[in-house]
Amino acid sequence: MSAPDWIAADWGSAHLRVWGLSGDQVIRHASSDQGMGQLAREGFEPALLALVGDWLPEGQVTPVVVCGMAGSRQGWVEAPFRALPCAPLGGPLVQATCRDLRLAVHVVPGLKQVKPADVICGEETRIAGFLVRNPGWDGVICLPGTHSKWVHVSAGEVVSCQSFLTGEMFSLLSKSSVLRHSVAGWADEGFAEGVAQGMERPERLMARLFSIRAEGLLEGRDPAFARARLSGLMIGAELAAAKPYWLGQRVAVIGAEPLVQHYAQALGTFSVPVTRHDATEMTLAGLATARALLPQTKRPCVN
Amino acid sequence: MSAPDWIAADWGSAHLRVWGLSGDQVIRHASSDQGMGQLAREGFEPALLALVGDWLPEGQVTPVVVCGMAGSRQGWVEAPFRALPCAPLGGPLVQATCRDLRLAVHVVPGLKQVKPADVICGEETRIAGFLVRNPGWDGVICLPGTHSKWVHVSAGEVVSCQSFLTGEMFSLLSKSSVLRHSVAGWADEGFAEGVAQGMERPERLMARLFSIRAEGLLEGRDPAFARARLSGLMIGAELAAAKPYWLGQRVAVIGAEPLVQHYAQALGTFSVPVTRHDATEMTLAGLATARALLPQTKRPCVN
Repeated sequence: MSAPDWIAADWGSAHLRVWGLSGDQVIRHASSDQGMGQLAREGFEPALLALVGDWLPEGQVTPVVVCGMAGSRQGWVEAPFRALPCAPLGGPLVQATCRDLRLAVHVVPGLKQVKPADVICGEETRIAGFLVRNPGWDGVICLPGTHSKWVHVSAGEVVSCQSFLTGEMFSLLSKSSVLRHSVAGWADEGFAEGVAQGMERPERLMARLFSIRAEGLLEGRDPAFARARLSGLMIGAELAAAKPYWLGQRVAVIGAEPLVQHYAQALGTFSVPVTRHDATEMTLAGLATARALLPQTKRPCVN
Repeated sequence: MSAPDWIAADWGSAHLRVWGLSGDQVIRHASSDQGMGQLAREGFEPALLALVGDWLPEGQVTPVVVCGMAGSRQGWVEAPFRALPCAPLGGPLVQATCRDLRLAVHVVPGLKQVKPADVICGEETRIAGFLVRNPGWDGVICLPGTHSKWVHVSAGEVVSCQSFLTGEMFSLLSKSSVLRHSVAGWADEGFAEGVAQGMERPERLMARLFSIRAEGLLEGRDPAFARARLSGLMIGAELAAAKPYWLGQRVAVIGAEPLVQHYAQALGTFSVPVTRHDATEMTLAGLATARALLPQTKRPCVN
């Protein structure tokens, strides 16, 4: 198998995912749970080499373009946030120090909104990829995940953003709270009921959450219904708070399944026109765009 | 030191606390982290004996009156919930099986509300203790803790209740979520700001939570301010949802410091008349009342 021209990497809090590309063709793929959350600064290069070391030809520098939390303060190298409003990608990428001379690692900077304070770290690349695929697109993008993001895009720039702790909270509640005794599996009816309740009375969230436990104890409620309802309550409450973003707008939802489908279903309840887009595809398109920002040099030979 | 006449026990999810009493006088006290959450059914008796074994005279049965999660489905013995409206204590206590003949363990049943589904398990005893100390009291009782409870009491009965996951969520967020990087300590101004924001726009909770992280990153916000603001946001959102309970009412807050003080301060913002009461004192008064429900037998001699 031929060596990749370059390597694309999405380095989040919990996972590292890498793709080896020849032009825009993916020829290798690997991933690990060596997310930024588990690593000290000196751990990043070994974690990357563990996945791509075998892909790198000797006597040659392979560029690696990285998006995500690896560019945060606790990451490999701090890539200072760029301030909104701005294009999702722009300015120089930030080079991380490598011992292995076969690597040249470039990190994509995240975005910041000064007031109300908010940050985007990784999603800017998916947004850029989406705009490459949909030139001239104006509207609202929703990026569900650990920390879901809503962004307003106009004339190729991210104008405003709003993040929610929804995904992380769902994970903590369903795995580490008292609710873990009551939730397992998935039943669509539970999700629909949760969305309706969360949307209608979002301020009651903390009480509704306890009701999942109480219904489990008193009514022996189906754990699949309960888990989907928990998800629905939280997404419904998020939609209630994000209403200024989606009301009267078209929304592009970018993420992984089944989460994208859940958000699309919830938004569909309110007749919002929604399109669904795969996060990996957008990430790769965005990283390819970021790579084009690198100075155009011939790949040097290191002897 | 003389042997206690009886033993009072508060057995929650996370802790076991026991008091040896002579009449209504506490002569011994001990506690451990052997909460119901860590124990299988056969682990309860050893966990209790580890604390009180030395207090028990031979050839004599010492009654132990227990409130809390030890009486739940995953506890020592399931004490079926009594349905609201009802007095906080009543009906027979439920006896748990003991191998050690020096022990007779009696568990106080919790309370249930059928619709909306809710349960109380341990707090009924504190409520009973409060009513013994304040006979004829009508109004609203707030019991902050892992799962904070609001109850409406009238004519000696608990009429309705509403539980919130506030305390457990605060613990998860401040210790196990991304916010743990941004919060430490306590600053009163942060609490006041959080309560005001949580109360004013409770539906924005999940977005405000992420802003704690973003402010930490972008503004280097003081972690003591941030942690108090996190607590304030959550308590403020709880108060917004619990408004039907406290509006136009007097509220007795029963719990441990500093939480009781925080709730009293937050309620004070809305000019609610509040009194503060120590949870341990109310628990002991309630368990003494529960003990009086036991059949009046002479303490038998086991030979």
